[in-house]
Amino acid sequence: ALLEARGFTADDFALSHPGGALGRKLLLRVSDIMHTGDEIPRVNNQASLREALVEITRKNLGLTVICNDDMLIQGIFTDGDLRRVFDQGVEISNAKIADLMTKGGIRIRPDMLAVEALNLMQSRHITAVLVAEGDRLVGVVHMHDMLRA
Amino acid sequence: ALLEARGFTADDFALSHPGGALGRKLLLRVSDIMHTGDEIPRVNNQASLREALVEITRKNLGLTVICNDDMLIQGIFTDGDLRRVFDQGVEISNAKIADLMTKGGIRIRPDMLAVEALNLMQSRHITAVLVAEGDRLVGVVHMHDMLRA
Ligand SMILES: Nc1ccn([C@@H]2O[C@H](COP(=O)(O)O[C@@]3(C(=O)O)C[C@@H](O)[C@@H](O)[C@@H]([C@H](O)CO)O3)[C@@H](O)[C@H]2O)c(=O)n1
Ligand SMILES: Nc1ccn([C@@H]2O[C@H](COP(=O)(O)O[C@@]3(C(=O)O)C[C@@H](O)[C@@H](O)[C@@H]([C@H](O)CO)O3)[C@@H](O)[C@H]2O)c(=O)n1
Repeated sequence: ALLEARGFTADDFALSHPGGALGRKLLLRVSDIMHTGDEIPRVNNQASLREALVEITRKNLGLTVICNDDMLIQGIFTDGDLRRVFDQGVEISNAKIADLMTKGGIRIRPDMLAVEALNLMQSRHITAVLVAEGDRLVGVVHMHDMLRA
Repeated sequence: ALLEARGFTADDFALSHPGGALGRKLLLRVSDIMHTGDEIPRVNNQASLREALVEITRKNLGLTVICNDDMLIQGIFTDGDLRRVFDQGVEISNAKIADLMTKGGIRIRPDMLAVEALNLMQSRHITAVLVAEGDRLVGVVHMHDMLRA
């Protein structure tokens, strides 16, 4: 109330607060902040579930893309999907990732604004999104990548 | 550049953009937006891994708290932890959650500002955080809960 009396709004506060470095990265394009190249978690569609999980752990984004050598996206598999596979009692030791993946996957274009990507992740209840030109994978971005400058 | 010339800053844009309803919720206290009561995913420390996973799926926050009947927190188990259990080749069918959980768990106080909680989740690389008074669990909040007004 005191701050408001001085013309300092709630939004100013969220942005300027020492703990609140929101906003700075959000005006960048997704292409400026996404993970590319070796940082992209990916396996081909012949991979086993076990290989896919190792890749998820290695790249630390909570998911792996399933794509071919030309980077054409076939699907995605997340930590949440692993849990659901489990819940369903699927026999896991010899499972192939192609049989378990989510076909397609939610994707955005590299020129989208970070703030729009963050809102899309919120509204679709996901924590990371594929970045693609058509069906060709060019990056992956996690909610964590968008916060702090 | 045009907008900047009119005194419209980058931060204004992030907040006022149609897709960008950031900032509104961020000035609330965590206690205003956290999940409470039946929405809290929790099992007691006698639960099996399987029971814990069912609870994670039912409550849809990607984790379960392990706590006693007085809500005293003992640990936490996330979708990411499930993947790591798998990677390590732990025999899963008869596993007890108490042997696999992360003891303690990252927690915040209910009077923390949402924007600070969001920044903490970013810096600790987690997507949800326990809300506690001392060791007593009072809620859980996910990054998704903080965005959009
Ligand atoms: N309130 C919390 C939340 C999590 N944890 C612990 O912190 C560790 C990491 O949490 P996670 O949820 O498993 O975090 C993951 C992980 O696997 O580490 C999940 C994954 O889907 C992805 O989101 C990655 C990326 O690091 C995101 O940048 O982060 C886990 O051992 C978990 O038990 C905790 O102690 N207290
Ligand atoms: N770019 C993406 C990301 C995800 N998905 C798919 O969307 C579904 C949900 O994604 P998730 O990452 O598994 O989402 C979870 C889930 O289990 O659904 C993970 C969980 O830890 C927790 O974060 C919850 C809460 O809903 C968060 O509010 O959300 C999955 O089938 C996944 O394959 C997708 O098609 N494209």
